[in-house]
Amino acid sequence: MDTSSFKFDLVASEKNARAGVLHTPHGDLLTPVFAPVGTQATVKAVTPAQLEETGASLVLSNTYHLYLRPGADLVSEMGGLHEFMHWPHPMLTDSGGFQVFSLANTRKVDEDGVTFKSHIDGSTHRFTPESSIQIQEKLGADIIMVFDECADPNNEVYIRQAMRRTHAWAERCLHAQTRSDQALFGIVQGGISPELRRQSAQFISSLGFPGHAIGGLSVGETKTEMNAMLEVVNDILPSEKPRYLMGVGSPEDLINGIFRGVDIFDCVLPTRLARHASAFTPTGRINLMNAGYAHDKAPIDESCSCYTCQNFTRAYLRHLIVAKEMLAATLISIHNIQFLVSLVKTSRQAIQENRFAAFADTFLQSYQPRRKRGE
Amino acid sequence: MDTSSFKFDLVASEKNARAGVLHTPHGDLLTPVFAPVGTQATVKAVTPAQLEETGASLVLSNTYHLYLRPGADLVSEMGGLHEFMHWPHPMLTDSGGFQVFSLANTRKVDEDGVTFKSHIDGSTHRFTPESSIQIQEKLGADIIMVFDECADPNNEVYIRQAMRRTHAWAERCLHAQTRSDQALFGIVQGGISPELRRQSAQFISSLGFPGHAIGGLSVGETKTEMNAMLEVVNDILPSEKPRYLMGVGSPEDLINGIFRGVDIFDCVLPTRLARHASAFTPTGRINLMNAGYAHDKAPIDESCSCYTCQNFTRAYLRHLIVAKEMLAATLISIHNIQFLVSLVKTSRQAIQENRFAAFADTFLQSYQPRRKRGE
Repeated sequence: MDTSSFKFDLVASEKNARAGVLHTPHGDLLTPVFAPVGTQATVKAVTPAQLEETGASLVLSNTYHLYLRPGADLVSEMGGLHEFMHWPHPMLTDSGGFQVFSLANTRKVDEDGVTFKSHIDGSTHRFTPESSIQIQEKLGADIIMVFDECADPNNEVYIRQAMRRTHAWAERCLHAQTRSDQALFGIVQGGISPELRRQSAQFISSLGFPGHAIGGLSVGETKTEMNAMLEVVNDILPSEKPRYLMGVGSPEDLINGIFRGVDIFDCVLPTRLARHASAFTPTGRINLMNAGYAHDKAPIDESCSCYTCQNFTRAYLRHLIVAKEMLAATLISIHNIQFLVSLVKTSRQAIQENRFAAFADTFLQSYQPRRKRGE
Repeated sequence: MDTSSFKFDLVASEKNARAGVLHTPHGDLLTPVFAPVGTQATVKAVTPAQLEETGASLVLSNTYHLYLRPGADLVSEMGGLHEFMHWPHPMLTDSGGFQVFSLANTRKVDEDGVTFKSHIDGSTHRFTPESSIQIQEKLGADIIMVFDECADPNNEVYIRQAMRRTHAWAERCLHAQTRSDQALFGIVQGGISPELRRQSAQFISSLGFPGHAIGGLSVGETKTEMNAMLEVVNDILPSEKPRYLMGVGSPEDLINGIFRGVDIFDCVLPTRLARHASAFTPTGRINLMNAGYAHDKAPIDESCSCYTCQNFTRAYLRHLIVAKEMLAATLISIHNIQFLVSLVKTSRQAIQENRFAAFADTFLQSYQPRRKRGE
């Protein structure tokens, strides 16, 4: 497949951290880049116009959800995902694999594919590498993903089996692709075993994909394990192609990922946290439901230039949350997305100025990750 | 009270229909004007920026709700309602009377005021004409309302009693007012009795309010009864002061009200309908949940210039509704608000060009009101 329209230019690097430009049919992505998630063809609670204002450039949407509702044929009939949801900038779809393994009610994996029941109505469906590519071609995102199997990081027997299947499926996905205006990325699996990760990175990168993703992380392993796997894998993945760490992440994970050579990230975190009243600040997350904010005239983050921080107080946001007003989710989502998008942009700038290590250090020292539920 | 900053200029009229300008401390209102409702200091599901884009100029907020949550003192501490919710344009608050009679769990009316239980937590509260004005002065809207009693339109004994009380309370509200940068409007009651309406309009307009509202309509009476009452009342209310028809309305009610000399309207309809998937079009409401729209590539209304109609198909909106995405309420609210705001603006233009009667006729002939639940 000729995917020369997806040229990736590295413009600067600082040790393993890289600043680049990934060209796509819907515009250039300046990497590192963070993609908010629009699971059902909408980033929850924000309009595309609001999303543009946050500086977001890439949006991920989920194949599993769109296949079930409204259906890939309908999206295709509407001119594809970009036109359907009115996002004229680059888009990425996952393969449906991760959701089948995490969301679907019952599933049966065989060598050929996965049979599963819809979490919406219990109806039975089947994904194969070929059908996943066919669906993603109908959806029409710029970057599409191979169908893979994501295994429990603590079950090495299963991880080995899933990795073998992921490799076979990756080859089948390559053969199934018919559109040349989509970049199909391979996915490295292998759990938390350095040896399996090495094997997987070597095998996947030998297939000639225009970009590579690292799957099966941020699924229950420790941060130390995740960082170790990133180092093992990125040491092998070719540096001239973009690297995508799937489903990550939190501010600290973004910094750690960029530090280890990752170019693309996506995560539901900013919007999911927002719907639970939790907002990013440079010193950590705050939960705006907290009574302590009832009379607080400050914005979420004094240093933030987002629409929310420029115009609304914590006291007002808390009122919206307490009064169960939808606007709370909208305003906090706008802030949280812009926080991550800006963090990654600032990192890019720092890489270009050869001061990313210092920036990362300063950020990680002031940002206190919190792990409590609901925050 | 010197409320000279609220000068009302009539710029054109066509029979009873009028085009005017009401000056307020937060800018001029071009009348007739339709105010969307921001019950809890937010027009549900839309940001102030989105609201501005619809062309809305006046927003109503509810004293009863804000008094209970977050409290008038907090809003005052935050700089008042305009600053709290970031709406720099004119605002209006009702007196809390209507909500006490329609929402509060139990209530006991006496000559001095009303004791009621909060619909949120059952706690006991009391409103008097004096406390209603005090609360509205803390909230700080440009236009505030006298505390009145809205009675069942079909119970004439109660209507007579409520009207008498409303008149006594109107005088007390006038005396209670201390701020000169808010225009306190009197409210005409009297149910569907022409005689009581006449008495009420005469009494209320004798008190020297800078503007007058017509209350107790659109609460269960027929359209014919409502229109007849408007004619009786507006024949008496001084033409040099603005007239506000409270809680109205639907497209056909706006046209009928403007035709009979009303200048200001407010209603939850555009946003409430939106949350039930119902959208205005020039030929009537459509419910976007309808399966018939699943493949419809048209916008809600081809002739509409709102953000929603410029960028999204009915098929996409239906998908959002079916998938229970918040964005549906946002996008349909934007359209419905702009539809009513534009209808009233177009009416103003037509009055200025002495062709409102023809415009009203054409509109009412093509617009088919529907009364089914959920639409």
